[in-house]
Amino acid sequence: MQEKSKNKLELARGFRDFPPEEKILRDKILSEMKKVFEIYGFVPLETPIVERLDVMTLKSIFCEQSDVVSEIYTFKDQGGRELGLRYELTFQLARFVAMNPQLRMPFKRYQIGTVYRDGPIKAGRYREFYQCDVDIVGVPGVIADAEIISLLNFLFKCLNLEVNIEVNSRKLLNDVLDWVGIPKPLQESTIISLDKLKKIGKQGVLEELQVKGIDQKKIDCLLDLLCVSGNNLDKLNFIKKIIGDTPGINELNELFEYLSLYNVDFIFLPSLARGLAYYTGPIWEIFLKNENELNVSLAGGGRWDNMIGKYVGDEKINYPATGVGIGFEPIMELIKKRDGLSIKTTSQLFIVPINTQKECIKYVEYLRSQNINVSMDLLNRSTSKNVEYANALGIPFVGFIGVDELNSNKLKIKNMKTGEEKFVPLDEVKSFLNS
Amino acid sequence: MQEKSKNKLELARGFRDFPPEEKILRDKILSEMKKVFEIYGFVPLETPIVERLDVMTLKSIFCEQSDVVSEIYTFKDQGGRELGLRYELTFQLARFVAMNPQLRMPFKRYQIGTVYRDGPIKAGRYREFYQCDVDIVGVPGVIADAEIISLLNFLFKCLNLEVNIEVNSRKLLNDVLDWVGIPKPLQESTIISLDKLKKIGKQGVLEELQVKGIDQKKIDCLLDLLCVSGNNLDKLNFIKKIIGDTPGINELNELFEYLSLYNVDFIFLPSLARGLAYYTGPIWEIFLKNENELNVSLAGGGRWDNMIGKYVGDEKINYPATGVGIGFEPIMELIKKRDGLSIKTTSQLFIVPINTQKECIKYVEYLRSQNINVSMDLLNRSTSKNVEYANALGIPFVGFIGVDELNSNKLKIKNMKTGEEKFVPLDEVKSFLNS
Repeated sequence: MQEKSKNKLELARGFRDFPPEEKILRDKILSEMKKVFEIYGFVPLETPIVERLDVMTLKSIFCEQSDVVSEIYTFKDQGGRELGLRYELTFQLARFVAMNPQLRMPFKRYQIGTVYRDGPIKAGRYREFYQCDVDIVGVPGVIADAEIISLLNFLFKCLNLEVNIEVNSRKLLNDVLDWVGIPKPLQESTIISLDKLKKIGKQGVLEELQVKGIDQKKIDCLLDLLCVSGNNLDKLNFIKKIIGDTPGINELNELFEYLSLYNVDFIFLPSLARGLAYYTGPIWEIFLKNENELNVSLAGGGRWDNMIGKYVGDEKINYPATGVGIGFEPIMELIKKRDGLSIKTTSQLFIVPINTQKECIKYVEYLRSQNINVSMDLLNRSTSKNVEYANALGIPFVGFIGVDELNSNKLKIKNMKTGEEKFVPLDEVKSFLNS
Repeated sequence: MQEKSKNKLELARGFRDFPPEEKILRDKILSEMKKVFEIYGFVPLETPIVERLDVMTLKSIFCEQSDVVSEIYTFKDQGGRELGLRYELTFQLARFVAMNPQLRMPFKRYQIGTVYRDGPIKAGRYREFYQCDVDIVGVPGVIADAEIISLLNFLFKCLNLEVNIEVNSRKLLNDVLDWVGIPKPLQESTIISLDKLKKIGKQGVLEELQVKGIDQKKIDCLLDLLCVSGNNLDKLNFIKKIIGDTPGINELNELFEYLSLYNVDFIFLPSLARGLAYYTGPIWEIFLKNENELNVSLAGGGRWDNMIGKYVGDEKINYPATGVGIGFEPIMELIKKRDGLSIKTTSQLFIVPINTQKECIKYVEYLRSQNINVSMDLLNRSTSKNVEYANALGIPFVGFIGVDELNSNKLKIKNMKTGEEKFVPLDEVKSFLNS
């Protein structure tokens, strides 16, 4: 009954608030990512969250991705135009390149932004989430694929996450499927089953392929080829011995060489498929090493040479492209679990006036002019209440200013972690806080 | 005819792409703002772009803001729930505070994010734009209003924009309207007309008020009071002499004292009204000084003490609040006009291999490990083509690596601005680039 007058406040289903302690960690990880992308020579791009529905769904027409399209939030503007919220960033890059023929190639861009999917909600799955995309447009050679993989290697080292980089080639998969004799119309569907190897095991995939009507002998042969063990070169040579010198074999040989020049450790996984139909060459996916739980993909990408040309809509104009989508949300989950939300504020110092609120203002303003992050008591609360407040907010230092401190131009600063107190002259506060 | 096969690629009406050179400047200004907000002790919050329509329109019910509500993009999710894209950030703060009763007060938060309005498109007006909001929740005293105004003063100094800070009080406006004898039902409408003083002049406002049926004598008296000239204290004392000691007069007297303690120059503008009906105390607005063109507001805010309580929906729980919405887009326009898009890339160095592409990779990787932003030729182009490319991208330095450089562990670095060339040992590149 007491609740009767309260408004029912709810977030839209699948959407989240990020309170300060969470937002601070998210911003820190995002800026770490941004730093790495820029170290690798990528420049930022921003595209709108709202797009015309026809432009947005062009990609799905090219790639037969009807599942994603069904998850687009759609609506109309006042002019009756059909619009939607973007569900990913890749089609926007394709559109941007197609609309900007003056762009110099190679075009190395990164983009960080939210995307929207009106899909089922599971643990850790939301309807608004961040994606971080890094792509190189205009380079046909595998050196560009190696650059992307090297960037991922560098990034996860910076984030202190030990990962496995799994690498394969869609060309090789196609070569193998052809050699085994999987009929063309069944190849895409076969690839979708192969993609589940980790999840449902060899037996599971075998059964799926049987249901799909593939010959038992062919299934055995396929799985023998793709589940080969050994080191990377052993595996590649084993496949090569059987299917011969194919475009996929050559592509991977070259990629392996570049990855060794880039000094990247990786795992050649011949069964890695990456469902999306638009990949045309090397593909890769990143998983946490030694993870016992459900192993979520932290990043995945590959070469996608044909899509931008389709956006341009002119057969003669084509842009090879390669890149990766980095799963910011699963990465955040891991880091949150590992580090906790240890930093609760961006503030460095909280000023507690002792009957000196008005006089303190010019002290606070001086400290701010030194680029110190400072707050002060605005409520004329008692000292103990102020200290308790600063402590609850996680502000690392509290500075007391009474009449004595005012007269001597000093602060009594308390380190909230150690409890130590020290008188610090006003003009030495900055170096004291940073020491 | 040649165009026939091309796809018609268009952005949604009112939406924009930000190419790298523009995104780099935007990011720079945003991070400058973030820095200032944190110096003033504010912490970041992130709320979703999509909200339940009922929650989003609560505010308009409280504030009779039907015009904004008509500009909300609305849609349904697959579950049939009515949703909308946020049109501002303030109602989200109110919702967040109402939903998180554990928050410690004062709560000083800033938020930077895009908002959406399906309104008419004019020059410089878009349907997706950034807003930067800074608010203090939980402090009833004008010291909090002075903190916000001081932050604005600091921010615009950092951005090197000379501005006028116009200050008034909604309480004073109400006092004046009461004293003049404007009937209560006409006061809101009178305030809306007064808000246009700058745009349509005294005569224009006079005519509007006549049409609204306000007595000529009252109009004259109102305009005499509100268009008073002189310095800030002169003006306040003039009004005080006529209407006496009112809550608005006292509030402004106190605010003036605090603003002088914060050392902020401002202009007391008794006619400043700020249309939004939810302001309850001091209000402020910021304009460029010496701007001849149409003078756009760069920031505006005030005290809004009653809204969060309404979100909570419990009369006994109330949160005083004060803050400002900073117009990132008009600020960007000014800075773009002033500085141009001078920085075209985040890259510092472009490596040009001279028949040494493969060998260069480990050089590039070494430089990246030093946190230098480096790209290299991935297309095996000629030296002249590579230099031309680096120049077009605006990369400030080009490093040439031939066989001699490889053998001596050096780079020949060219400063693209001065044309100077110098041999730099690999491990001195970082300090060379930063010097």
